[in-house]
Amino acid sequence: MTKKVRPKNSTLVVGLPGIGNVGRIAVRYLIDELKAKKFAYLYSPYFVPVVIVDEKSVAKTIKNEFYIYHGDRDFIFLTGDSQSMTPSGHYEINEMIIAFAKKMNVKEIITIGGFNSGEIKSNPKVIGVVNDEKLLKKYANCGMAFEGNKTISTIVGSAGLLVGMSKNVGIDAVSIIVETPGFPIAVADPKAAEAALNVVSKITGVGIDLTKLDKNVKLMEDSIKKTEELQKRIIENMKEDKNANQYIG
Amino acid sequence: MTKKVRPKNSTLVVGLPGIGNVGRIAVRYLIDELKAKKFAYLYSPYFVPVVIVDEKSVAKTIKNEFYIYHGDRDFIFLTGDSQSMTPSGHYEINEMIIAFAKKMNVKEIITIGGFNSGEIKSNPKVIGVVNDEKLLKKYANCGMAFEGNKTISTIVGSAGLLVGMSKNVGIDAVSIIVETPGFPIAVADPKAAEAALNVVSKITGVGIDLTKLDKNVKLMEDSIKKTEELQKRIIENMKEDKNANQYIG
Amino acid sequence: MTKKVRPKNSTLVVGLPGIGNVGRIAVRYLIDELKAKKFAYLYSPYFVPVVIVDEKSVAKTIKNEFYIYHGDRDFIFLTGDSQSMTPSGHYEINEMIIAFAKKMNVKEIITIGGFNSGEIKSNPKVIGVVNDEKLLKKYANCGMAFEGNKTISTIVGSAGLLVGMSKNVGIDAVSIIVETPGFPIAVADPKAAEAALNVVSKITGVGIDLTKLDKNVKLMEDSIKKTEELQKRIIENMKEDKNANQYIG
Amino acid sequence: MTKKVRPKNSTLVVGLPGIGNVGRIAVRYLIDELKAKKFAYLYSPYFVPVVIVDEKSVAKTIKNEFYIYHGDRDFIFLTGDSQSMTPSGHYEINEMIIAFAKKMNVKEIITIGGFNSGEIKSNPKVIGVVNDEKLLKKYANCGMAFEGNKTISTIVGSAGLLVGMSKNVGIDAVSIIVETPGFPIAVADPKAAEAALNVVSKITGVGIDLTKLDKNVKLMEDSIKKTEELQKRIIENMKEDKNANQYIG
Repeated sequence: MTKKVRPKNSTLVVGLPGIGNVGRIAVRYLIDELKAKKFAYLYSPYFVPVVIVDEKSVAKTIKNEFYIYHGDRDFIFLTGDSQSMTPSGHYEINEMIIAFAKKMNVKEIITIGGFNSGEIKSNPKVIGVVNDEKLLKKYANCGMAFEGNKTISTIVGSAGLLVGMSKNVGIDAVSIIVETPGFPIAVADPKAAEAALNVVSKITGVGIDLTKLDKNVKLMEDSIKKTEELQKRIIENMKEDKNANQYIG
Repeated sequence: MTKKVRPKNSTLVVGLPGIGNVGRIAVRYLIDELKAKKFAYLYSPYFVPVVIVDEKSVAKTIKNEFYIYHGDRDFIFLTGDSQSMTPSGHYEINEMIIAFAKKMNVKEIITIGGFNSGEIKSNPKVIGVVNDEKLLKKYANCGMAFEGNKTISTIVGSAGLLVGMSKNVGIDAVSIIVETPGFPIAVADPKAAEAALNVVSKITGVGIDLTKLDKNVKLMEDSIKKTEELQKRIIENMKEDKNANQYIG
Repeated sequence: MTKKVRPKNSTLVVGLPGIGNVGRIAVRYLIDELKAKKFAYLYSPYFVPVVIVDEKSVAKTIKNEFYIYHGDRDFIFLTGDSQSMTPSGHYEINEMIIAFAKKMNVKEIITIGGFNSGEIKSNPKVIGVVNDEKLLKKYANCGMAFEGNKTISTIVGSAGLLVGMSKNVGIDAVSIIVETPGFPIAVADPKAAEAALNVVSKITGVGIDLTKLDKNVKLMEDSIKKTEELQKRIIENMKEDKNANQYIG
Repeated sequence: MTKKVRPKNSTLVVGLPGIGNVGRIAVRYLIDELKAKKFAYLYSPYFVPVVIVDEKSVAKTIKNEFYIYHGDRDFIFLTGDSQSMTPSGHYEINEMIIAFAKKMNVKEIITIGGFNSGEIKSNPKVIGVVNDEKLLKKYANCGMAFEGNKTISTIVGSAGLLVGMSKNVGIDAVSIIVETPGFPIAVADPKAAEAALNVVSKITGVGIDLTKLDKNVKLMEDSIKKTEELQKRIIENMKEDKNANQYIG
């Protein structure tokens, strides 16, 4: 935590790397649009053991970042470079996030993710999943289909775990899962992000100007295409490095 | 623990996911038939890091559940969604279960599992394994073959570890391992579950009406077939997600 | 620890599962010949999560066992079912063994292992490795070749780690590594075990009647052949079980 | 820590195993040339669970070693046999290194690594990466190209993590990453090491006589070729050992 903030009755919106990068793009756009302020970091030994070199030749460790926006109510945004590399790491990290949310008086968690449908659609389907039946009414007219487990029966990683685990500490939570054609992983799907943002806007009552999204995603896409190459290189480096580590001299 | 219960001289019956889902079906049927009450949960970072979406669009974390039934003696049932994903997690989880059993005055543990014989039989073989030689007499006429390590020489996971590890804390334990043809994993074998329940009935003296088993398993099979697809999807999602996690941007 | 023992100036002889099962056979034979008494167990979550069913239908958890023999000096023997399944588990387990050895006043550790030469020889080579140069003189005429790293440049697992790690706590240690043709893993090599026992006899001054070794190993071989099948089955079960664990219903 | 040292205002130079062994060769050469004294060890359960047998038949555990050289300012050198075998182990080990550096009054960390370009060049490219933009000026004329993330966008392991993580504790850090043709892993690249040493000399002002480097690397190459074979054998042994560990008898 780099800045002391004391949000009251806040909503946490989470978008971490995943299929189509739907959540990550959407939350990053929200942060930029609302000019939210960075106030805390999350580091974990369960992230990839690399640093990212930026355009100024500065190395940065992998992290997730919390941003705050003070509106009618307070919003905390969580986005970042990575999710856990190991199954049990997922549990540890998300438990930490929920403990932190509790401390930040979070009363509602909104997570954003994607699911592969294999089809390109101009109007992607948005599925809603909650952590308590009573929330179905609250989120009834926000543009999500609540269709049980017809299409999605499990949600992997933070988008799901944060919703499931927050139930035990009395925080309401909803996951917005948007259909995405299942491009190569590192490709961002702005259409899906737009659909998610429309739902977020309806849930929160915060107006979001989406006209810059396409342009922003286009800008991000350059960097995302680059990171796609990086990603391949990382995986290859990891393999080589793994061998290098086993080198005994 | 959601409800305070104080069982005395109780028997713990365990059926977790495994080959043919023998234990899981059998214990689930027992819970339904005896109208046992849920009273405690077991969560673990060693479970798959997903939530399960139910038919009402509610996300639930992976868990094991304890149920209680007060009869002539008390019965505790343990069943659930998952076993550990890692070898050392198996040890940790089963140690927790045994510590909890000790607290619940469990004097006897019965675990139910399956073994692949590759053959479809109308009368599946039931093999018994105990944690103390002196128990062979006690369980002599309950429909299990005690044939040493002729057919089964090792038992993987909870069905085995709970029996082996409970010895050190002075709890009697028996594992009922039923022959199953070795269908695809997620397929339930009601014949094997029936054979296990007959043994449980003889051990415990609790009469179990098995007439609804076939019907119930048929009902479960729909959901089990569905979960079989899920399972595949989870494994694929995990792969994708693993990559997504290594995505650096 | 099941029996209180207070050895003085004792020697620890270690033979755990490994290539050709050289150490395991040799130490098991020593225990039987010297009628050493079991006095302590070692359990670890890093062992395979299974129980072993014995010929009486009794399930036993995986463990390592310590035996004691009171002679002119005291001998502690360590053998067992398994080594660690994970790299870091190797370090943890061997650190525990060394701490226990320290408590048991162990002044000298002898480990026995095998190395694959790919050739069947009537007179297998025995290579010695110590944890301090000054020990070369002490072990000079015990039937080991001290040839630096010409043939063996690294030793994996307990046979090596116990020797390397004991240096830091001031315990002398030697590893007896015997050439073995590299049969399938679960096959025992009595010739190699015999060669190791000849060296142990020279080091310790304890006469060992080796006439029963061939017969004993033949007896063990039956069980070892059985366990070889088991091993395969375990590996397969683990695979299946791994899937079963990922089953979500 | 085997010797008490109290460096003031010291610089830590790190070269651990990696691509082309660039850092390892360079730092080893510095230690030999400057006759730096060994004063501390780093052990970790995340290293490969083996011992290394030396030319005198002495087994040594895997470790990293700290050396000290008292000049106009103090230099600490870190080199060793291995990096972590697991991702989270990387974080733990490098956190330990940084905590130790802090205790040793380290004000500047220089790490040396290699990157594969796939081309053999007489004049390999040297890329610099820092942990704070303000350092770009300081290192401007030391022979490194600061070109953002054009060629390198992520750095795996200690060479990167030490730079990224030291930022949080207020230590300046730079990573010298040298182009290397990407020979088989265990092959050392003296050309790349020479390029790195030229940069180190410019940064530190310490004159380094490089005339013996070629000869030394030739000497090291014999041992490195040997270790390359070893490496293969280790990987194979690990596989066998892994199976041996799963052997249940």
